[in-house]
Amino acid sequence: MEKNEVRDDRLFELEDEFTELIKNKKFKEAKTLIEDLNEVDIAELIDKLDPTTGTVIFRMLGKDVAADVFANFDTEQQQEIMKASTAQEIKEIMDELYFDDLVDMLEEMPSNVVNSILKYSLPEERTLINQFLKYPEYSAGSIMTIEYVSLKKEMTVKESFAKIKREGIDKETIYTLYVTDDYRRLIGILSLRELIVAPESAKIIDLMKSDVVYAGTHDDQEYVAGLFKRYGFEAIPVVDNEKRIVGIITYDDIMDIMEEEATEDFQVMAAITPTEEPYLDSSVIFLAKHRILWLMILMISSTITQRIIQGYETYLYSVAGLSTFIPMLMDTGGNSGSQSSTLVIRGLATGDIKPHDWFKVVWKEFRVSVLVGIALSIVSYFKIIYVDRMPESIAMTVSCTLIIAVMTAKVVGGLLPIAAHKLKLDPAIMASPLITTIADATTLVAYFFFAQQIIG
Amino acid sequence: MEKNEVRDDRLFELEDEFTELIKNKKFKEAKTLIEDLNEVDIAELIDKLDPTTGTVIFRMLGKDVAADVFANFDTEQQQEIMKASTAQEIKEIMDELYFDDLVDMLEEMPSNVVNSILKYSLPEERTLINQFLKYPEYSAGSIMTIEYVSLKKEMTVKESFAKIKREGIDKETIYTLYVTDDYRRLIGILSLRELIVAPESAKIIDLMKSDVVYAGTHDDQEYVAGLFKRYGFEAIPVVDNEKRIVGIITYDDIMDIMEEEATEDFQVMAAITPTEEPYLDSSVIFLAKHRILWLMILMISSTITQRIIQGYETYLYSVAGLSTFIPMLMDTGGNSGSQSSTLVIRGLATGDIKPHDWFKVVWKEFRVSVLVGIALSIVSYFKIIYVDRMPESIAMTVSCTLIIAVMTAKVVGGLLPIAAHKLKLDPAIMASPLITTIADATTLVAYFFFAQQIIG
Repeated sequence: MEKNEVRDDRLFELEDEFTELIKNKKFKEAKTLIEDLNEVDIAELIDKLDPTTGTVIFRMLGKDVAADVFANFDTEQQQEIMKASTAQEIKEIMDELYFDDLVDMLEEMPSNVVNSILKYSLPEERTLINQFLKYPEYSAGSIMTIEYVSLKKEMTVKESFAKIKREGIDKETIYTLYVTDDYRRLIGILSLRELIVAPESAKIIDLMKSDVVYAGTHDDQEYVAGLFKRYGFEAIPVVDNEKRIVGIITYDDIMDIMEEEATEDFQVMAAITPTEEPYLDSSVIFLAKHRILWLMILMISSTITQRIIQGYETYLYSVAGLSTFIPMLMDTGGNSGSQSSTLVIRGLATGDIKPHDWFKVVWKEFRVSVLVGIALSIVSYFKIIYVDRMPESIAMTVSCTLIIAVMTAKVVGGLLPIAAHKLKLDPAIMASPLITTIADATTLVAYFFFAQQIIG
Repeated sequence: MEKNEVRDDRLFELEDEFTELIKNKKFKEAKTLIEDLNEVDIAELIDKLDPTTGTVIFRMLGKDVAADVFANFDTEQQQEIMKASTAQEIKEIMDELYFDDLVDMLEEMPSNVVNSILKYSLPEERTLINQFLKYPEYSAGSIMTIEYVSLKKEMTVKESFAKIKREGIDKETIYTLYVTDDYRRLIGILSLRELIVAPESAKIIDLMKSDVVYAGTHDDQEYVAGLFKRYGFEAIPVVDNEKRIVGIITYDDIMDIMEEEATEDFQVMAAITPTEEPYLDSSVIFLAKHRILWLMILMISSTITQRIIQGYETYLYSVAGLSTFIPMLMDTGGNSGSQSSTLVIRGLATGDIKPHDWFKVVWKEFRVSVLVGIALSIVSYFKIIYVDRMPESIAMTVSCTLIIAVMTAKVVGGLLPIAAHKLKLDPAIMASPLITTIADATTLVAYFFFAQQIIG
């Protein structure tokens, strides 16, 4: 990682220098120091200051970068700036922000702040903002933006360029162009690259592709992310029920969403109520709340294993050494099951596994579990006899249980996520903790059964 | 998901129609049916045929789409086509493929096929291919491509456009332009958008941004993905030790890598030796091999819990009901620990948590675990007394153990992934299965300790 450290180091050095200048109230020098940076880096440096000083520096930034930096601030800093700004300044920021960033900002703010900000917007803009705020969370409508370039099919390349040159500076992307009919219905797409290499007199209708991949306003963002991954597009249009284009979603927003979706799966799979709040910013109470529900459910469902052991308690006491293998058997069953459920949950998430593949999964898991179960039981058999120096009857009991435990855990672990998917539940809940709880019970029942058969 | 189903349905219908035509050997009609589709969809439809028929259809496709479709085939279909093609055809495919797709294809093929393909390339191209094949796996060099547009700082906007128009069709992206000096060193970047809205006579040096974010050829792909996520770029340049630009990486390749990296983490966290092979395409032996190693290690390390129980076996027998809570305590400890380790592993992967935050993590986990531990132990206490109708001394023992089990598991679960990161190991190995094994031992020791103190 030689090269990267170089960049990181430079940012670190810059940060020290910047903090030093701020400390000495040399705000103008501080601003000059950072204004050539990327807006993400500028926002990070300002975010680290106290909000009031941050606002001072922000208001010194040039108009051309201010909105981009603003969009990268955290909510606290954004609110501080809104409070400190004049009506004219708020209007300027709102005009410069991309529509999706504006809506994102408003979603995070208390409603009184939202109302006071909306005062500065034009009536038609206000209507549009309110409409966007109403799209369901995690829908395509809630993440799209309205700054795209649309062309008409009868336009020439030259006319199109003139339009792009005129409007392009305010658009989120100009690299994908949308061709619409007189009713604003999407009839084709075209990349700027195709436009650039085409002769000036060519018509849009002859260059555009009419097989357009699009999303509906109410489609889930995960589905939209799937389209991006499948096709590698730079932007995807969002249409309403009449196929009229209402917005676009760009790849950079989808990258964030892909990351959020993966994080959500990780959390659900670890029996955590999911949240988008970053770990270090979360309060202790908040973190505890998100963990306790599932721990409680799983703890109470352990009553099953408790009752099974209770039923065999006297028998367990009568065979020395029998109880010592319970943790190992339970862990191995649980781990085997979570291997399978994890692969299937992930496969469903990436689209590698489709729900109608359920039988293939079960059949595969069955065969894998036979192989894995036998291998583990052979090793365990010899370990118990030659390392632990216990009777062969116990070794045989443990080995037989291992095979059944691994097989049940793997088949159930492979099947449950698909079943959850079919029941429109999140497959990720069928992960390690839940599978472990199920595997525990089967493992114990099998163990006591084999023990009574083999040891007597 | 109304709108999406529409598209999926159309593809399904098309597939039926296409298969029907193929069955009746109406290859020409089949080709006409699909050639207007997106190249990803065309490749998928052809991939589903047997390789020979696939090759027939492929060779009927127009030159303009053929290479794009080819890049989307699976390895088997690519090899089949290479075998069936004439020298001239192979040369054409190679010329049309983007360099990164070409290298990807060659990496997957047996070396004799690679050699016979390389025969058709020019000597300088061959040298370059060999150089690319030598970059370490998962490095920026191994995923970059060479088709970018470079400009000189003294060029005008008009001259730059002429160059883009001339070269653009063969470039992976023309939307980010790279400014280099006479030694091919990267001195600035510029977006096509900035070029389009600028006056024709403006000079590149006045438009370009010299604060360029770049990666080194040997940087890890995960680091590069981090740059994309942080800055939202469409492409990132890759430079060598002398800061000469040698390639670029585009957002669509990074999306695949983000997904692969997340999948790898999921696998490692479920105690699976990671692989990029899709689940349904993997053989049973392959799947078993990737699961058995960790199961074996974890099974053998359970010897510790086995010995702990062995040491207390007589004591365990002497208190009725004591053994029945072992599964619940172990599972709760394991689940608590994997909640913490999952959040920290994911935080490290997304960059929300930095290794130097280790103390913050420990302190947070400590406080969360106190809250969660107390809540669980109170519920468990009353459940044991009023539902299970067991003695208060057992209830108290279980409750005290729960607090210690949750606290140890959470603090250790939070700390171990960071420790692994510092030791340059993958933090993801410190996940559920390993934490469970560690939590099991502490939980049992605490359980027997409290039992002897409280019950006697």
